[in-house]
Amino acid sequence: MYPLFSDEYYMQLALYEAEAAAEAGEIPVGAVVVCQRKIIAKTRNQTEQLTDVTAHAEILAITAAASYLGGKYLRDCTLYVTLEPCVMCAGALYWSQIGKVVYGASDEKRGFSLVKQPLLHPKTLVRRGVLEEENTQLLKNFFLKLRT
Amino acid sequence: MYPLFSDEYYMQLALYEAEAAAEAGEIPVGAVVVCQRKIIAKTRNQTEQLTDVTAHAEILAITAAASYLGGKYLRDCTLYVTLEPCVMCAGALYWSQIGKVVYGASDEKRGFSLVKQPLLHPKTLVRRGVLEEENTQLLKNFFLKLRT
Repeated sequence: MYPLFSDEYYMQLALYEAEAAAEAGEIPVGAVVVCQRKIIAKTRNQTEQLTDVTAHAEILAITAAASYLGGKYLRDCTLYVTLEPCVMCAGALYWSQIGKVVYGASDEKRGFSLVKQPLLHPKTLVRRGVLEEENTQLLKNFFLKLRT
Repeated sequence: MYPLFSDEYYMQLALYEAEAAAEAGEIPVGAVVVCQRKIIAKTRNQTEQLTDVTAHAEILAITAAASYLGGKYLRDCTLYVTLEPCVMCAGALYWSQIGKVVYGASDEKRGFSLVKQPLLHPKTLVRRGVLEEENTQLLKNFFLKLRT
């Protein structure tokens, strides 16, 4: 168990979402949005179920969080996501002006940090590598299983 | 009137969508997706109406087109959009593997072409500047009206 309200605590919840995605045959990525310690969105990758390449956990999380708050901007929110966001999701996070992004595993193929120019909003804080090992392992296991 | 099935013909339809967005108080951007000459999606920016920064015309168009086709990929499709896509939308278009992107006005602040690394799929063709003047004028008028 991780300390309540710690980054690891919320990331663990995002990891549960990712596990649920894997069970549904989706690439396992989960996300949680927290605002003043309260979880206001919990989402997972649904690209296969929704037949929609835009249905990444982060995009669904931004939409759900804004819907909950009744406003477009997520300046006081933190997004926890098990995998480094892609360019699409980084672009969406830019528009949301989200306060902080915490991610677990790095995405060495499609991660936004591979783009040299900054893609997130200048005010957005970033923390990487939270529960990195667990998050990376879940993805590795998923792709391993897919190939066998 | 532009020749039937020309890029200008479809862009004109996207421009009508953008005009409808302006009337609804939205930043006027419209999009049309065409597959084998058939229009399979017509969308416009709805970020205000949906309280959702991800509700750009292009994102809604990708979702609608994939839903129509029953498949995630838009390899045989062309997206017509009145304004140059942003980084988020370019990232979404990458995932869709769309065949061609045709845009009107350039976005000198947030356009994807400001990022030096290629964001679209390597197989995606791009044509810019279609009905550029009309598309640019619509945006200019919208922001001028907003300020007065």
